[in-house]
Amino acid sequence: MITVGVIGYGYWGPNIVRNFAELPDARIAWVTDLRPERLAQVRARYSSTNVGTDHNDIITDPSVDAVVIATPVRTHFELGMAALRAGKHVWMEKPLAATSEEAARLLDEADRRGLALMVDHTFVFTPAVQKMRDLTRGGELGDIQYYDSVRINLGLFQPDFNVLWDLAPHDLTIMDFVLSQTLGTRARWVSAIGTSHYGRHENLAYVTVGFDEGLLAHVHVNWVAPVKTRRTIIAGDKKMIVWDDTSPVEPVKVYESSVDVEHIDKESAYALNVQYRSGDVHSPKLDGKEALTTMAQTFAAACLDGAPSPSDASVGVRIVRMLDAAQKSLDQHGARIEL
Amino acid sequence: MITVGVIGYGYWGPNIVRNFAELPDARIAWVTDLRPERLAQVRARYSSTNVGTDHNDIITDPSVDAVVIATPVRTHFELGMAALRAGKHVWMEKPLAATSEEAARLLDEADRRGLALMVDHTFVFTPAVQKMRDLTRGGELGDIQYYDSVRINLGLFQPDFNVLWDLAPHDLTIMDFVLSQTLGTRARWVSAIGTSHYGRHENLAYVTVGFDEGLLAHVHVNWVAPVKTRRTIIAGDKKMIVWDDTSPVEPVKVYESSVDVEHIDKESAYALNVQYRSGDVHSPKLDGKEALTTMAQTFAAACLDGAPSPSDASVGVRIVRMLDAAQKSLDQHGARIEL
Amino acid sequence: MITVGVIGYGYWGPNIVRNFAELPDARIAWVTDLRPERLAQVRARYSSTNVGTDHNDIITDPSVDAVVIATPVRTHFELGMAALRAGKHVWMEKPLAATSEEAARLLDEADRRGLALMVDHTFVFTPAVQKMRDLTRGGELGDIQYYDSVRINLGLFQPDFNVLWDLAPHDLTIMDFVLSQTLGTRARWVSAIGTSHYGRHENLAYVTVGFDEGLLAHVHVNWVAPVKTRRTIIAGDKKMIVWDDTSPVEPVKVYESSVDVEHIDKESAYALNVQYRSGDVHSPKLDGKEALTTMAQTFAAACLDGAPSPSDASVGVRIVRMLDAAQKSLDQHGARIEL
Amino acid sequence: MITVGVIGYGYWGPNIVRNFAELPDARIAWVTDLRPERLAQVRARYSSTNVGTDHNDIITDPSVDAVVIATPVRTHFELGMAALRAGKHVWMEKPLAATSEEAARLLDEADRRGLALMVDHTFVFTPAVQKMRDLTRGGELGDIQYYDSVRINLGLFQPDFNVLWDLAPHDLTIMDFVLSQTLGTRARWVSAIGTSHYGRHENLAYVTVGFDEGLLAHVHVNWVAPVKTRRTIIAGDKKMIVWDDTSPVEPVKVYESSVDVEHIDKESAYALNVQYRSGDVHSPKLDGKEALTTMAQTFAAACLDGAPSPSDASVGVRIVRMLDAAQKSLDQHGARIEL
Repeated sequence: MITVGVIGYGYWGPNIVRNFAELPDARIAWVTDLRPERLAQVRARYSSTNVGTDHNDIITDPSVDAVVIATPVRTHFELGMAALRAGKHVWMEKPLAATSEEAARLLDEADRRGLALMVDHTFVFTPAVQKMRDLTRGGELGDIQYYDSVRINLGLFQPDFNVLWDLAPHDLTIMDFVLSQTLGTRARWVSAIGTSHYGRHENLAYVTVGFDEGLLAHVHVNWVAPVKTRRTIIAGDKKMIVWDDTSPVEPVKVYESSVDVEHIDKESAYALNVQYRSGDVHSPKLDGKEALTTMAQTFAAACLDGAPSPSDASVGVRIVRMLDAAQKSLDQHGARIEL
Repeated sequence: MITVGVIGYGYWGPNIVRNFAELPDARIAWVTDLRPERLAQVRARYSSTNVGTDHNDIITDPSVDAVVIATPVRTHFELGMAALRAGKHVWMEKPLAATSEEAARLLDEADRRGLALMVDHTFVFTPAVQKMRDLTRGGELGDIQYYDSVRINLGLFQPDFNVLWDLAPHDLTIMDFVLSQTLGTRARWVSAIGTSHYGRHENLAYVTVGFDEGLLAHVHVNWVAPVKTRRTIIAGDKKMIVWDDTSPVEPVKVYESSVDVEHIDKESAYALNVQYRSGDVHSPKLDGKEALTTMAQTFAAACLDGAPSPSDASVGVRIVRMLDAAQKSLDQHGARIEL
Repeated sequence: MITVGVIGYGYWGPNIVRNFAELPDARIAWVTDLRPERLAQVRARYSSTNVGTDHNDIITDPSVDAVVIATPVRTHFELGMAALRAGKHVWMEKPLAATSEEAARLLDEADRRGLALMVDHTFVFTPAVQKMRDLTRGGELGDIQYYDSVRINLGLFQPDFNVLWDLAPHDLTIMDFVLSQTLGTRARWVSAIGTSHYGRHENLAYVTVGFDEGLLAHVHVNWVAPVKTRRTIIAGDKKMIVWDDTSPVEPVKVYESSVDVEHIDKESAYALNVQYRSGDVHSPKLDGKEALTTMAQTFAAACLDGAPSPSDASVGVRIVRMLDAAQKSLDQHGARIEL
Repeated sequence: MITVGVIGYGYWGPNIVRNFAELPDARIAWVTDLRPERLAQVRARYSSTNVGTDHNDIITDPSVDAVVIATPVRTHFELGMAALRAGKHVWMEKPLAATSEEAARLLDEADRRGLALMVDHTFVFTPAVQKMRDLTRGGELGDIQYYDSVRINLGLFQPDFNVLWDLAPHDLTIMDFVLSQTLGTRARWVSAIGTSHYGRHENLAYVTVGFDEGLLAHVHVNWVAPVKTRRTIIAGDKKMIVWDDTSPVEPVKVYESSVDVEHIDKESAYALNVQYRSGDVHSPKLDGKEALTTMAQTFAAACLDGAPSPSDASVGVRIVRMLDAAQKSLDQHGARIEL
């Protein structure tokens, strides 16, 4: 059993609280938020939970084992360090921190103290992403050639960061999970081009990530698109996956389609007799389990037993490094930034 | 009435021949091709048309007014120059030539001789693209913010060029027609990132084009994608278009969706109070006319009366310049190339 | 302000309770259910609400103004009569009663006592159905020709009734609202064909309803279909609506499509020169308001001021009469039953 | 090698002629049509084919082995009998004849003379329908429970028959092929309800067919629908097929979805513990072969070797009997007509 305190009860906080409240291994002791109307909601739903406006009440409470930090990214470092120094395990909203350096220091602190530090990369716990990981890991797709994702909609502009920091973490995390953690393929460079139509922050960006062995990943993130689109292609040389995360039916489809090359002429580097093969399409039934429930269980296990997690702080650091590099590239008009 | 000779009867040639054959203002006098089995097909369908393997028969025939050149791109310059020098009007398959320099010389030759030189950018004659041009021209969309296109499928690998030269001309031409010719907005730079999984030629590329005033265009072209996708967004600050060219119904949709900004803080360059508005969706009925018929009529009028065309050689030169720049950027790992 | 007691806290009850709890004009005083675990849920969420297993506690409580009856249909008559006789307004789950006779007696009782008796035909309060009613009422569609609906999925088999009584009330109610209440067109006869693959109750049925002036309605309801489908066509002789209630985008589309008849030959009754016209498609933006909120407000107004409702008991009686007739037709192999 | 004469070169005739012209085993000797402009088209495309306005030229030509009759249905009987009596094999446009009696007499005549008489039920030669037949025949679907088809669009009104005779033959033929020919299940009764909005002929009809053992089939045919829909469900108790014939991708999908019944209580005839199971979805790759090519080959084999065909005259007779019964039911307001 872990006792949890939650700092921040905004858009995502209620989902986290609900999941821990329903977990047999956890108990929500505290929720703090600066807004009284948010605390009133907590009180109405969870009468036995302490509420307040001062997060120090959580950090200094010796009965609290773990702290959930669901506040704006600019506060992650300070709150996270305080919680870790108080000996608490930490669940951090994504991204882990506002800079690579801060992220690395949080990781160090947690490692040194033997505490769990997990980042809320919810997507890696979704049945769809786990299915894609299974397909990749099992070799069914063959060699992975590219990852292409479109993650666009008419979206809420965030006051303190741009669309890159808002939406790209999802794809970077999925790539890390499906490609790097599964295949050992490492991201080597990043480039990004974007534009800002309404003030300082980019609301549209194209991010390219180069992995080992020519594997290319590309992500289109956009807050000003008329139709919500969440479409990801993971292409292997044997089969290809298309994941449409907005589709109410058959979100993951596996295509038995590929390119057959009879041989490549060594001298000219020409591919000769390239043929394509279009085959059956298969849509696996996905487990209906809520991703956040799986993540809460994983976090509880990490706190209690030190069990590993696919969204631990080392992943969080890698993601922030890629975001930092992408931002640098954005600022340099698309220059390639080595990782 | 124009008398037409056609050099090359491959994949696209039969469509061109059929359209000219059905045009009251035109007559097909000749078709040449190196392959006897292709000529047999011409003979079976058009018994009064001369066939042969030597294109010089066409170029030297004084009764021929215009020559259609539907051969591989590497032959465009030589055949085009020969035809123009023989005083023939020319219809050239896209792209106009293999290099910017060759394209410019063809344009000069045609201009000096007062001959029509038109490039077969069929898309600008489609009802969908013409409707989008009308919507852009009429100001209904507001200021144009970006153009985003995905043009991918499991495609035939071309032996002598890459996916950039195969598919990107379509989008570059549509941009030129809808944005540059209509709004006077000029393309300023190009960058491109791509990869080649099967031999020398890139089969996947992401091309970004920067226009005046921050207008950004981005195109994903790909021969190794499991699902044929042809989806273009033209986003204005009042309305946005989504064109799905694979959809059997309602291919063009106009979204009354936009972002409202109360004001932008001058000091901080922050957009304050950004709101989004999601409204009705309207799908205009499109004229069912075949694009190639419209293009053949336009070409006949250009030959007979010097009537203007939205796909004349000056457009063709601009497109080849963009392709050249994109290729250069591909070769330089995505470096921005000024136009 | 009305004080509400709720009998039955099963699948739908929590939604009703939540909506009344959030309504300024209402207060939930009581919830009863036979299952202790359901009552525990009420207690956890609504600490100030009385809970119990005996619905008589609600009916005899003089502070209660209105009773919500969300129990199986076989109990509707007895519970409804008890509540009305105790002077309470009643919100009844659909259908109003298990037979036409019971439904009529409930209506009489409510009328005689001047009490509100409303049936939970939630669909008539949805933005989509209200938009379709507006389009029909405004004459924009022209004369209505037919209503066709497919309402099928892999569905929960109900233990005490068949698919007709489970799903067809939705369509019968929408027809009543959009056609009968709006245009004054009356349903005249019903026929139904169905089959039962798993025991006594039909799990598949086709229901046809004949209205005045040749207007035909047809509904396919089915618990054994692989894909959830909720598609309704309302066809007028000027425009037609297609409503896809499973679509996450543009659920209501209005087609400017129609058939043009030059004239009909009087002698032969032949239509001569029938042409069809296919035009623009328009998808109106729908209000995002939850239907149950609108219905709770309408019910409160009916209790407090006697305000009218499009789902009052007279509608409820008409729907049960049609269900009775359809069941009779099912039992007689599709014989036409006059209403 | 068979020598073929074609009577009627209207909407469908050119496709038939093209397929026979490209078949190594066949030669088109004659095409007749009453309209000179249609004959001009034949001449332009097939210079060695005789053309004329008198079909007797074909029937009396001793070199002709087989006659294709692609004329309005009211002429089928007379032309078919004349051709058979002249010793010609016959390919008849669907439906075989205007009445069951005429259809039966044509069948008798062909049988007595040992001539092939095939009906152009093209659908049974499509890769989609053949795949569905394979799935049904192999038992993969389990016991078939129902067939449901929606075949609607904004359609050309036919001058001399109604929507039942125009569109329903497609579904009746597919049912005959997939269910009756494959499983031995026989159609036992038909009922139909329809309406006519524009003159004498029904433009909308719902047809129900009862087969052995409770298997029910239902077809919605309609000339006044805003969206072209061609969706067929074939539901078995193990798997179900959905065939969307308008979809450019994955037209046939096989759902591993079903209803599990633990047991049915014998006394009450209640199904107890009905559960549903929703599983993977599989879309088989379909052969791209043109159906008419397969049918022309089958016809040639039937003429030359007496090879069997799934669309022979006995099938044609069954289809016309069902159409006759459905028409009778339409005229009797939906009364069930035994076959």
